[in-house]
Amino acid sequence: MTDTGEDDRERARPAEAHAADVDDIYAPDGSVRSDFLMQVGAAVADRDILFLRRHVAHLHESEMGDLLEAIQPDQRRALVSLLGADFDLAALTEVDEAIRLDIVEHLPNEQIAAAIGEMDSDDAVYILEDLDQEDREEILAKLPFTERVRLRRSLGYPESTAGRRMRSEFVAVPPFWTIGQTIDYMREDDDLPESFTEIFVIDPTFRLLGVVELDRVLRSKRDVKVETVMRQTSHPIPALMDQEEAAQVFEQYDLLSAAVVDENGRLVGVLTIDDMVDVIQEEAEEDLMRLGGVGDEELSDTVLETSRSRVPWLLVNLFTASLAASVISLFEATIEEIVALAILMPIVAGMGGNAGSQTMTVTVRALATRNLDIHNAWRVVRREAGVGLLNGMLCGTLIGCVAGLWFQDPNIGGIIATAMLINMMAAALAGILIPLVLDKVGADPAVSSAVFVTAVTDTTGFFSFLGLATWWFSIG
Amino acid sequence: MTDTGEDDRERARPAEAHAADVDDIYAPDGSVRSDFLMQVGAAVADRDILFLRRHVAHLHESEMGDLLEAIQPDQRRALVSLLGADFDLAALTEVDEAIRLDIVEHLPNEQIAAAIGEMDSDDAVYILEDLDQEDREEILAKLPFTERVRLRRSLGYPESTAGRRMRSEFVAVPPFWTIGQTIDYMREDDDLPESFTEIFVIDPTFRLLGVVELDRVLRSKRDVKVETVMRQTSHPIPALMDQEEAAQVFEQYDLLSAAVVDENGRLVGVLTIDDMVDVIQEEAEEDLMRLGGVGDEELSDTVLETSRSRVPWLLVNLFTASLAASVISLFEATIEEIVALAILMPIVAGMGGNAGSQTMTVTVRALATRNLDIHNAWRVVRREAGVGLLNGMLCGTLIGCVAGLWFQDPNIGGIIATAMLINMMAAALAGILIPLVLDKVGADPAVSSAVFVTAVTDTTGFFSFLGLATWWFSIG
Repeated sequence: MTDTGEDDRERARPAEAHAADVDDIYAPDGSVRSDFLMQVGAAVADRDILFLRRHVAHLHESEMGDLLEAIQPDQRRALVSLLGADFDLAALTEVDEAIRLDIVEHLPNEQIAAAIGEMDSDDAVYILEDLDQEDREEILAKLPFTERVRLRRSLGYPESTAGRRMRSEFVAVPPFWTIGQTIDYMREDDDLPESFTEIFVIDPTFRLLGVVELDRVLRSKRDVKVETVMRQTSHPIPALMDQEEAAQVFEQYDLLSAAVVDENGRLVGVLTIDDMVDVIQEEAEEDLMRLGGVGDEELSDTVLETSRSRVPWLLVNLFTASLAASVISLFEATIEEIVALAILMPIVAGMGGNAGSQTMTVTVRALATRNLDIHNAWRVVRREAGVGLLNGMLCGTLIGCVAGLWFQDPNIGGIIATAMLINMMAAALAGILIPLVLDKVGADPAVSSAVFVTAVTDTTGFFSFLGLATWWFSIG
Repeated sequence: MTDTGEDDRERARPAEAHAADVDDIYAPDGSVRSDFLMQVGAAVADRDILFLRRHVAHLHESEMGDLLEAIQPDQRRALVSLLGADFDLAALTEVDEAIRLDIVEHLPNEQIAAAIGEMDSDDAVYILEDLDQEDREEILAKLPFTERVRLRRSLGYPESTAGRRMRSEFVAVPPFWTIGQTIDYMREDDDLPESFTEIFVIDPTFRLLGVVELDRVLRSKRDVKVETVMRQTSHPIPALMDQEEAAQVFEQYDLLSAAVVDENGRLVGVLTIDDMVDVIQEEAEEDLMRLGGVGDEELSDTVLETSRSRVPWLLVNLFTASLAASVISLFEATIEEIVALAILMPIVAGMGGNAGSQTMTVTVRALATRNLDIHNAWRVVRREAGVGLLNGMLCGTLIGCVAGLWFQDPNIGGIIATAMLINMMAAALAGILIPLVLDKVGADPAVSSAVFVTAVTDTTGFFSFLGLATWWFSIG
């Protein structure tokens, strides 16, 4: 098998050139192999630069990222400083923010500047944006003029926009060039992006006219004009578009990349699918975390940081739980008489909570993926009510029999069965209506749905069960 | 601006050629515009084929999918049959399974066969795999030989494998060809895939030797041999690899596409990033749904289907809730004496449940993204215990003061504070250890963690609170 050997591509794609390493550093479960970690640890301790150059320097950026996350925290900086110029800063785009900052803060600005000059602009921005103003300016000042202007432009766009995420390097040609001219230009120009899948067509003011995919270039004859084979770009991404929205455009139209344009329709960069995959994943993850009552925490956060980020949600829940408790206290006298009620009431409340969280999960996800909208909302609400009724009858009957036998009292069985049915209907309605309403008023349904739904199912559960019992035994 | 007009590309990428429609069919909130739906509905009712050809036939497959999901169910089949040959079956890859089956079952097999002949093989397989044996064979029999062999090979691989998801069309050349020969071949051959980003290099037995990206082809001189510019493919995907694993390879190495090889290293197809994006999204969604106690349901499922899929989880929870209730029943006598305990106990259990679900959510996600492994598990367990301690002290102190004042009894305040601390520590440990152990023994932590964690926090909550109270008041 032939290897491209010395050529410039090797720099760009070290992983492929060192295929053997890939199988080497991971154990079957996907974690970094323990013995490899120990070897690296020993090499760092011994300052064995030869070993590191040979077995670590050439890792793919994502493998290097995994390695940095897996080794002992005190060896991290030592590893990076031993690798020196051999350390590919792009690996920092693959690690936790805490680790990234820790490493960047301990690297000399000269080294960062040199590394950033070599990087694709999107990776460079990813690292620069986390630095404090002063360091960032110092690093930018060390860069060549065009590079600096490009990075400043990206950094000028707000966080989480397409402009901030785009790569500023692209290939653009005028519409009157022929395919032959275009190919010759690409064969000669040394300043092309590391990799690209299409060529943009622009007018002299950089206004975007169209796009030609590379397979299209290759299928066309040399004398064909670019403007006759280009197609309109129907999905140019405005630089100020939110990255989540941009990711949705990629997903819907199966794009590999998309032109990013400024307010005047001028081409300023290109968004690529690999960055959008990260956004899509982050977005799905965000919903999951928020439904679980967790904010933007990272595995490397300290106890104090984690605790602080989780406390607000716990306090809100403490408040709603106290509300539910005060509902119970309304029925103190009944409980005093029939302790069985105290024993059974958590079952009613808890099952409502479970049923509510099922409906809520489906609703939140359907809203996020835009599968739930005004056209089917009413149908889904009716369906959920039906499911609540059916499952409420089933679970109610079941627990009614169990409780009736347990306490040798058919009254208690009937009461808990009815209360369960009521609460599971309430849970179904709360589980769908609360996220729908939150979404309608512009709030993120993933953030606060759970609190409201639990509040509804707890209070309804306690109130219906204890209230029914109080009423029934008072007339009985 | 020039349009590619009549050429074959237009068939392949209708959306881009009809850019105006894109803005037309969606309302600002991302749902299909209501007036567009009404126009289409009216056209279907009037059998106004002209309108449909003009405004519907040329929609991008994903737009057509959204339209099919949004219109009245009874108009769906009518719309498809009115469009006839103008209906692009690829739209069916974008809709709910229930809708897909409904439409496919009502289309004549001839029409399906004709449409499948036009499609990329990965889309064709997506539709064929859902059909029953008989229909599938009938359709396959109508296809040309090579097409049929290709599709049968894909269908022969198990569900959810790379082989089932791959596209069988690709461009492959021998290593001794020159770049010039390769380009000429692409200019002349009409049977190329609709779009591609790289060329594979194979030996006469179809064994994969390497790959050349199109940008690499364009940058090379005509007389250069393919074998000197190709690079080794370090990430060929075995056809039997699970699609989730394949998606992880794409994600880690930022691939746009990857060669799929059989057991003998022979090239059989190509996986592309757009299909992997769907897999990545599905995977994240699966975790979310499972944590919420929901299976693989779809928004179009009926009440009965939905109810049936959700019942098992409810029944398991009914069982654990009953266990927790039986813990309460141990302390019947104490509750009879001090009703305040019955009022407060759900707070202790509920807060444990919340804290446990926070830790569990983070753990399940970290396991899924492989951020949590043996190298950092111990550190994360210690961190979670620390967070449990800290938040337990905070919430315990708070509820202790509130409860003490509420019931005018410092004893009760002290007891609930201590029980809360104990339960939140238990919640933290259960939240991290249960998913870790489930993962270790090969079970999916997203599926069953919630049940076990709730069981722990409920029983610990009731037992610690009521037990402490019984002990304290018995010695007091």
